[in-house]
Amino acid sequence: MNASPQIEERARGGWGWLWRRLGGRSEAALAGPVERCVATAELLLAESSDGQAVHIATALSDMLAALSADEMALFLQRLASAFGPDHARLQAAVNDYLNQPDGASAAWIGAAAQMRAVELLRRLNMTPGATALIVALRAEMLRLGRSEAAVALLAEETRQLLSSWFNRGFLRAEKLDWQSPAAVLESIIRFESVHAIDDWDSLRRRLDGNRRCFAFFHPAMPGVPLIFIEVALTDGMSDRVGPILDGDDRNVPLDAPTHAMFYSINNCHRGLAGISLGDLLIKQVVLDLRTEFPSLKSFATLSPIPGFRTWLTEECRIGRVSDLPEALLDAPDLLHDGGAAGPLRDPLTLLCARYLSGRTANGGSATVSDPVGRFHLSNGARLERINWCADPSPKGVRESFGLMVNYRYVLDTIDANHRAFVGDGRVAISSGVAALLDPPSVSRRIARTSAWIKTAPRPTSRTTTPPASSRHCP
Amino acid sequence: MNASPQIEERARGGWGWLWRRLGGRSEAALAGPVERCVATAELLLAESSDGQAVHIATALSDMLAALSADEMALFLQRLASAFGPDHARLQAAVNDYLNQPDGASAAWIGAAAQMRAVELLRRLNMTPGATALIVALRAEMLRLGRSEAAVALLAEETRQLLSSWFNRGFLRAEKLDWQSPAAVLESIIRFESVHAIDDWDSLRRRLDGNRRCFAFFHPAMPGVPLIFIEVALTDGMSDRVGPILDGDDRNVPLDAPTHAMFYSINNCHRGLAGISLGDLLIKQVVLDLRTEFPSLKSFATLSPIPGFRTWLTEECRIGRVSDLPEALLDAPDLLHDGGAAGPLRDPLTLLCARYLSGRTANGGSATVSDPVGRFHLSNGARLERINWCADPSPKGVRESFGLMVNYRYVLDTIDANHRAFVGDGRVAISSGVAALLDPPSVSRRIARTSAWIKTAPRPTSRTTTPPASSRHCP
Amino acid sequence: MNASPQIEERARGGWGWLWRRLGGRSEAALAGPVERCVATAELLLAESSDGQAVHIATALSDMLAALSADEMALFLQRLASAFGPDHARLQAAVNDYLNQPDGASAAWIGAAAQMRAVELLRRLNMTPGATALIVALRAEMLRLGRSEAAVALLAEETRQLLSSWFNRGFLRAEKLDWQSPAAVLESIIRFESVHAIDDWDSLRRRLDGNRRCFAFFHPAMPGVPLIFIEVALTDGMSDRVGPILDGDDRNVPLDAPTHAMFYSINNCHRGLAGISLGDLLIKQVVLDLRTEFPSLKSFATLSPIPGFRTWLTEECRIGRVSDLPEALLDAPDLLHDGGAAGPLRDPLTLLCARYLSGRTANGGSATVSDPVGRFHLSNGARLERINWCADPSPKGVRESFGLMVNYRYVLDTIDANHRAFVGDGRVAISSGVAALLDPPSVSRRIARTSAWIKTAPRPTSRTTTPPASSRHCP
Amino acid sequence: MNASPQIEERARGGWGWLWRRLGGRSEAALAGPVERCVATAELLLAESSDGQAVHIATALSDMLAALSADEMALFLQRLASAFGPDHARLQAAVNDYLNQPDGASAAWIGAAAQMRAVELLRRLNMTPGATALIVALRAEMLRLGRSEAAVALLAEETRQLLSSWFNRGFLRAEKLDWQSPAAVLESIIRFESVHAIDDWDSLRRRLDGNRRCFAFFHPAMPGVPLIFIEVALTDGMSDRVGPILDGDDRNVPLDAPTHAMFYSINNCHRGLAGISLGDLLIKQVVLDLRTEFPSLKSFATLSPIPGFRTWLTEECRIGRVSDLPEALLDAPDLLHDGGAAGPLRDPLTLLCARYLSGRTANGGSATVSDPVGRFHLSNGARLERINWCADPSPKGVRESFGLMVNYRYVLDTIDANHRAFVGDGRVAISSGVAALLDPPSVSRRIARTSAWIKTAPRPTSRTTTPPASSRHCP
Repeated sequence: MNASPQIEERARGGWGWLWRRLGGRSEAALAGPVERCVATAELLLAESSDGQAVHIATALSDMLAALSADEMALFLQRLASAFGPDHARLQAAVNDYLNQPDGASAAWIGAAAQMRAVELLRRLNMTPGATALIVALRAEMLRLGRSEAAVALLAEETRQLLSSWFNRGFLRAEKLDWQSPAAVLESIIRFESVHAIDDWDSLRRRLDGNRRCFAFFHPAMPGVPLIFIEVALTDGMSDRVGPILDGDDRNVPLDAPTHAMFYSINNCHRGLAGISLGDLLIKQVVLDLRTEFPSLKSFATLSPIPGFRTWLTEECRIGRVSDLPEALLDAPDLLHDGGAAGPLRDPLTLLCARYLSGRTANGGSATVSDPVGRFHLSNGARLERINWCADPSPKGVRESFGLMVNYRYVLDTIDANHRAFVGDGRVAISSGVAALLDPPSVSRRIARTSAWIKTAPRPTSRTTTPPASSRHCP
Repeated sequence: MNASPQIEERARGGWGWLWRRLGGRSEAALAGPVERCVATAELLLAESSDGQAVHIATALSDMLAALSADEMALFLQRLASAFGPDHARLQAAVNDYLNQPDGASAAWIGAAAQMRAVELLRRLNMTPGATALIVALRAEMLRLGRSEAAVALLAEETRQLLSSWFNRGFLRAEKLDWQSPAAVLESIIRFESVHAIDDWDSLRRRLDGNRRCFAFFHPAMPGVPLIFIEVALTDGMSDRVGPILDGDDRNVPLDAPTHAMFYSINNCHRGLAGISLGDLLIKQVVLDLRTEFPSLKSFATLSPIPGFRTWLTEECRIGRVSDLPEALLDAPDLLHDGGAAGPLRDPLTLLCARYLSGRTANGGSATVSDPVGRFHLSNGARLERINWCADPSPKGVRESFGLMVNYRYVLDTIDANHRAFVGDGRVAISSGVAALLDPPSVSRRIARTSAWIKTAPRPTSRTTTPPASSRHCP
Repeated sequence: MNASPQIEERARGGWGWLWRRLGGRSEAALAGPVERCVATAELLLAESSDGQAVHIATALSDMLAALSADEMALFLQRLASAFGPDHARLQAAVNDYLNQPDGASAAWIGAAAQMRAVELLRRLNMTPGATALIVALRAEMLRLGRSEAAVALLAEETRQLLSSWFNRGFLRAEKLDWQSPAAVLESIIRFESVHAIDDWDSLRRRLDGNRRCFAFFHPAMPGVPLIFIEVALTDGMSDRVGPILDGDDRNVPLDAPTHAMFYSINNCHRGLAGISLGDLLIKQVVLDLRTEFPSLKSFATLSPIPGFRTWLTEECRIGRVSDLPEALLDAPDLLHDGGAAGPLRDPLTLLCARYLSGRTANGGSATVSDPVGRFHLSNGARLERINWCADPSPKGVRESFGLMVNYRYVLDTIDANHRAFVGDGRVAISSGVAALLDPPSVSRRIARTSAWIKTAPRPTSRTTTPPASSRHCP
Repeated sequence: MNASPQIEERARGGWGWLWRRLGGRSEAALAGPVERCVATAELLLAESSDGQAVHIATALSDMLAALSADEMALFLQRLASAFGPDHARLQAAVNDYLNQPDGASAAWIGAAAQMRAVELLRRLNMTPGATALIVALRAEMLRLGRSEAAVALLAEETRQLLSSWFNRGFLRAEKLDWQSPAAVLESIIRFESVHAIDDWDSLRRRLDGNRRCFAFFHPAMPGVPLIFIEVALTDGMSDRVGPILDGDDRNVPLDAPTHAMFYSINNCHRGLAGISLGDLLIKQVVLDLRTEFPSLKSFATLSPIPGFRTWLTEECRIGRVSDLPEALLDAPDLLHDGGAAGPLRDPLTLLCARYLSGRTANGGSATVSDPVGRFHLSNGARLERINWCADPSPKGVRESFGLMVNYRYVLDTIDANHRAFVGDGRVAISSGVAALLDPPSVSRRIARTSAWIKTAPRPTSRTTTPPASSRHCP
């Protein structure tokens, strides 16, 4: 039904009408594509007819889509600098407010303080397909915003606009499976960054049998997942990712799974950073799965620990973990070295528990810095269990010595956990993790291992190292 | 997929969790339903977890839906008075801005100036189905706002929120026909107010053959039309509504219609008043019909003139139309009186042309006050033709002596017409209408008719009056 | 996707190609529309290219749809007489078979024995939409077949063809509700003949709340229900139809209904008579409802008894029910006459039990003749309960003195009941019905009533009779 | 809606009910899976209740799906031998017919002559999903039928049943693209046998840009294509398959393609062999494409010539092509050898024209034996052009020395071409092909080449041979 107005325009002879509106100048007379976009943006803001605004928005949308990366950066800088609030108007509104500080004058201030760029984006969205473009523009704003404060401000204001548009009430949760359109599944392959999907066969293993995949969609971006989560239905809390990815247990009958393991969650659009999606998707999926499988008793993640090695390296450097020789940090291959690495298990697990629970060596408390950890803890999950040799892939070893962690979502405690974490920084932990945090025990075991490390024969050759792509521990 | 969180909550034992959150008080301890809604609204605004916010929004949504009309009014008053901006925060932001008036401080002001009620509505929308509720709340705000300024301000701020959500890019135009769900068609029957639909058979006559009906839908309100427009495909510009409604020509083959007549356009939600939908729908439908029927040459309305009699009565009263005896205005039945009413045709048509084109008796210009006229003229349509005896229904006679008007949408002039009207108040008129506005001619004809009126025998009995429900002129 | 080949043909200049194929004759040269159809039918049978056959089938389909009722009858007579089997070929095949009676010669006979008309209908079905046409043709065959044996034979052969096409595996059961297309719901209104639906409001009352409606559809007749069944979810076995139709209990919460009452089942196409649909739909609906409402314990009908009065009249006439005065049969109004009719309750109920269970006055067995009864009993249902004053509508009184019956489907006994009834004519009855069949009791009660009847004062005036449309007993 | 009856059965405790029906024997008491299937088949044929029949059909369907290949063969043999017609009944019907050979007795013969196995399959189809099973059974029948006449007869009777079910009116043509379900697209990869699809990227190249893919589906086999055709939209008649498969021209704008090239057509189910699908799909696609692209002037194939080399080898062997040295047939590599192979072009093209047009060396006529050729010619296509070096893949060289052929579908001549070919074996040829068939010219050029062949230096090493996978000619 929604034939693009642009077809209409083109049918009437291209964009002549637009150049005429732009002061009678021909396309060529305008300085260049960025200049044309800026002029068209001004026109769009000034247009009083909604019907006409749709046409101009369509033209601007097409022009923006045709910009090169450099031109786009230039355009966004112009947007940030020249489409701020109207300061004269704002100043007047402020004076009004100071004279009579009531609701009406406050509302007037609010309107005057708004960036013109935000209104521009709202109007740009009048043309079908513009929502995806605006999300892409914000991704670029975020990139540029790292070095340019004005663009960072624009990115933040755009976040608020998108946050209103990507409100939970407008999102649709959908189950993805082998009956889903190939175009959607291709996005899953493309955006899976936690545990890469090699090909369509691997993808299929994550969609059927006792695997599930759910995504949020927005009606203005049909066929484009916003965020997706992958789940394995099992009969116990998974402690290693290999069997999940290989689908070893895929044919286990689905009569009565007891555990739903969330093993991967991925955002598909950098432009939606800072907009709450993951928390909401997890909770929707918990509801959906509970309805489909009443036998489910436990919802937990099997999560990576992306910041562990970096943190540990730094802890060693500044002397907080004095006993652990740096040798360890240089010798990840030990982890692959069968029995030889065994002695490392205890100290690394203990240190990891400290890292993830925000405890210091002397039992004090610190901020949890692991991004995945912060996400699940602020969602109200509990730090449940740390798993040795759970992800022996090169990435897993590089990031966290192959360790992974289970966060568990217990419905009755989600709310309290969330508030304890967000309010006081307190991390909910299981008794198992609590046992790892007993200070003497930690120090003792680390000391023991250090001694071993110093005397242990280093592997003389890397030929014993298993293939880097191995997903299984020796 | 989207199982309501509320099901979940209830499964866990009702809203005990909510009362606990509300300070440990039991439901009974709270003063009453309005008090409970206000307390829950505060809780929702304070909630830091999105997952929890969904639960609270669901609870609040259910509570609001259960309020009586009086309670709802009370709640909205509380919203308007107690959920305004945080003035202390705004004052601080204003001071910052005065010290350093830049983009960042302006943004800070903008955030501080926002009504808390608007953020509340945004969060309320996290639960499925809340969008329709918010639209309904705004309808109530508008009603209350007539007498209470604070609620009127809230209604306006809510309009801005809804305007962002009901952005063209999020709307879906759909053709409605006999294959549409009965629930949707029932809405059409219910909301048609221009030319009432008596029953399902009448409805069907407006959906098939050479009739069309199009509506806008919003994805968060599935199955609920926002606005709809009814079209007759004909081979000439219709000059009376009877044949259209009776479907006399419905079976005329649709090989090559030349005219698309828009004969009814209706908004379905008072809560969306002030949000641009009609202009956009008309233009979408023009595009869709042009694609389906390349033979179409002319797009025009057959519109009522709701304000004509009121205007004319006032003109007479203040002596601007001195020659026309008030007798006329009291004797609408003359219109039904066959040949007898003939002499009225000319003067009424001339006066109507003056009314709709915003001309004064001496050729000066006035503001067009007819609401339907303002709508189409500001959309860029042209005042094309005034039709005598086009709607002889009681409503038609009562409002406009049975006159109706064609507004015509000519693609190439829509933009210029719109700007002339919005900018300078100039009305685009056809040569036919222009001929009616020649002052001497107007005065002359009115004078002639006045003379006639004075001497004309009044109908002695009303038995000659045709049935009031007649859609056809004698 | 399936653009009609006919569009194509017409684009190429109408059916000139067809008349050329028909021996170079012009359309006018052919004797008339029936003659043209017969000639085209021969052409279709002779065509060796499937692609061409589609074109011819489309042309024939259009021609047939344009025939008048008389012409259609003529065409079907031609089909029955001139499109029988090829007897020469069949004779040869018979000789072959007699020489060598094996599988191959039997197959050859089978092919030769087939009516050419059946192959014609199969080929006619190559054009989209023809299936509905063929069903309509069979309805006409059945009508004509009452007086013409050859057409009756054709109707039977067509039944076998349709039976293969309307195989259970090709049918789709669907729930109908207020979200269904208006065109489908209109069919429900039109084809409901057990308890007529007055208007769309009445229809809606049969679709939502604790009412359900299910239908079978065939993929080649999209949007056209084949048969539908109406169900009320209740908490007891309904004994009168008024509350069901009026929806008195529609708002009873659906937490845990215990009974599903099938109160109406209707075929939509006479042309599908003799093809098993009802039995299959009932059993599908039982499965679907059990899944949706695990609380359901009992599936039963509330059925009319269309043949009771006719049977009883005949029984009286031939003296088998000697004691019951014919007065009764002439005085149905007694039933409406409050207490006055009370004494009739027992004898009519007893006689009805006899009628429905296939028992004679002396305890012998007879054939069950009631068509609704035969349907449910052969489906394996049990004769459960006879309900006095269950349908006091004029139709109910006229057919069965207002009595209705519950047939109950008990899953574990359906199979045995079915076989007992189909094999030996034995009717499964509840203990309640069994009690009614005790011969002495029956005779005694009838005798008592007869005495009463003879002396009872007849109503002197019909002014006491309640409105004929009443659905409720006094 | 269509919850499987089998769920129901299992809910009631497995198949105990079935074994009870099978004479009270336990599952174990039956001789084995084949015996159980045969007994259940008899039960299904004997069942008088449709509701029960659905249950039995479901059980039989599950049992058959669980048979091993050997067991299935055994079962089909039993079906062919023990489920033939009832000869006693047939004999009686034959006698009736001989006594009174009319329509009724013929119908009676027809019914009696039917194989019981066919009725069994019809009843088996009462369970959802059985249609696909029956198609699979027929594939197996065809395989076994090569050596067993009784099974071949069963396969033929089953073909007639399927032919009625897969009637054009029941098929749905659909366009496949990147929005189609992955499960459907996977079938395309799997069943493409003309030009194999390597992976999903290759697949995508055949679905978008100026490529199209269409398939037939049957409603009882949702998501399972029956046959599909691949089309390239071009601006000239393609003479080599490489650019089509590589998608070299995929980004050519689709403003106005002039040619639709059908470059691959594949059946997906051996069990549907002998049922007309390809002809009908081609003609549907022609209609659909003409609607979408009015600029299309020519519909043609780029087809393989699978039988050419085999035919030519045989022609040489029996001396009909005496002058062409067998050396050629042994030296396909010459074709890859750049200029060196040039002299072969003329004679091979000429001989191929003879092969495809059914002409003998002396201008007489022979039967066209190429299966692809027979398919398109009987569909009414014209032999348009023979293309040298059109498919230099190993398969292309092996089958037809790299030659491919264009068959062209000209709407106005399809009917006449079809009838000339099917009736008299006459092949419609273009003037270009006619020129190749002039006998003296053919002999002369072949002679010239033979001389060249005899003296030409043979390639000394295969190192000059391009990679076998090459799709492009040197």
